Amino acid sequence: MKIIELKETITASNDRDAEVLRGELKQKGTLLINLMASPGAGKTTLLERTIRDLKDKIHIAVMEADVDSDVDAVRIEKIGAKAVQAHTDGMCHMDAGMTRRALEGLGDEAFDLVVLENVGNLICPAEFDTGAGKRVMLLSVPEGDDKPLKYPLMFRVSDVLLITKTDVKPYFDFDFDACVARAKKLNPNVTVFAVSAKTGEGFAEWEDWLLNAVSDWKNQEMNF
Amino acid sequence: MKIIELKETITASNDRDAEVLRGELKQKGTLLINLMASPGAGKTTLLERTIRDLKDKIHIAVMEADVDSDVDAVRIEKIGAKAVQAHTDGMCHMDAGMTRRALEGLGDEAFDLVVLENVGNLICPAEFDTGAGKRVMLLSVPEGDDKPLKYPLMFRVSDVLLITKTDVKPYFDFDFDACVARAKKLNPNVTVFAVSAKTGEGFAEWEDWLLNAVSDWKNQEMNF
Repeated sequence: MKIIELKETITASNDRDAEVLRGELKQKGTLLINLMASPGAGKTTLLERTIRDLKDKIHIAVMEADVDSDVDAVRIEKIGAKAVQAHTDGMCHMDAGMTRRALEGLGDEAFDLVVLENVGNLICPAEFDTGAGKRVMLLSVPEGDDKPLKYPLMFRVSDVLLITKTDVKPYFDFDFDACVARAKKLNPNVTVFAVSAKTGEGFAEWEDWLLNAVSDWKNQEMNF
Repeated sequence: MKIIELKETITASNDRDAEVLRGELKQKGTLLINLMASPGAGKTTLLERTIRDLKDKIHIAVMEADVDSDVDAVRIEKIGAKAVQAHTDGMCHMDAGMTRRALEGLGDEAFDLVVLENVGNLICPAEFDTGAGKRVMLLSVPEGDDKPLKYPLMFRVSDVLLITKTDVKPYFDFDFDACVARAKKLNPNVTVFAVSAKTGEGFAEWEDWLLNAVSDWKNQEMNF
């Protein structure tokens, strides 16, 4: 397991660094997804199932960002995808420079899709452009339907909202329609999928979106 | 509902500011608890039940810190405790200066216990001393038993770890013993309670601890 020790990039120009990185990835035909959520929302479990389902169709790698440990990268490698573990030196988010260094850790292979599993945190990661082509966030049913009210920026900047752990919906007071309405009020263009990695609910739709996004990234001129 | 708009305190001396605030609160006989957890771990629900159970024994107030909204403070006021809502101006944590300003929002009443419900975040709040006498963290069963490995500082600085939502344990793979062992490895002195606000499991023990902490804070000389 490759573990990369990172420091926050000291630069006044994170947004510019992110644009440059995005341009380079576009040239290579590699879609980078910035996957964000609270701790324990199910990011790694989502990736395990997604990789299992799609690994014969597209070439996928994962960068796991955490303050400490390598448990998530170990889980991803067991599924058969290339993974690196990045340690953020106590930092609560990834920036573009840190993302570039983690990408270097993946080596020279050509990937169709690289997922950056960001630090578990619903606040700080939303503030930093990592150079990703798409931002995808998770909100798990146990966290509650009021989260868009309390963490609005994350919902505002995400292209996709995955509502996860729908299998435990009977045991929680989670108003799905209210949650989606709150998210759409902040971000009318957000695409919402309700998924359960346990039952497979919603994975066909989520994976279709993902395959289309990878294909569009390779084939379309994009103004970003 | 009083909403207090805060800015991060620009000071090089947060630790000293926190010590001064802690001393003032000790003089007044007010125990300040810094309550920390991920988004959706059940902080407000814990407080609702705790206040309901203890409000005839001790005088309690709550400071809700969030990036946005006032839903939590409204919930606390419904239970009959004084509450203020602090907005952190996008900040991912509270510091001692912000805590002082939120306390001022509670006015001149004498409280036995003031709970600062910190921003939902398992990383940044652990780094800032707010002036609290005790730090209490929540980890909910749905978040998973591996969280001490990935967010070690929060587990290291907390006096109490409340493992919440134990009523849904049958629906999640959560190894209670492994979680506690991981937490104790980081922090051998941490006191652990397993609680469910739905069934009431563990509340008698948690509330005993809380009443003792309030009493000790008033009666004992403390070296902090």
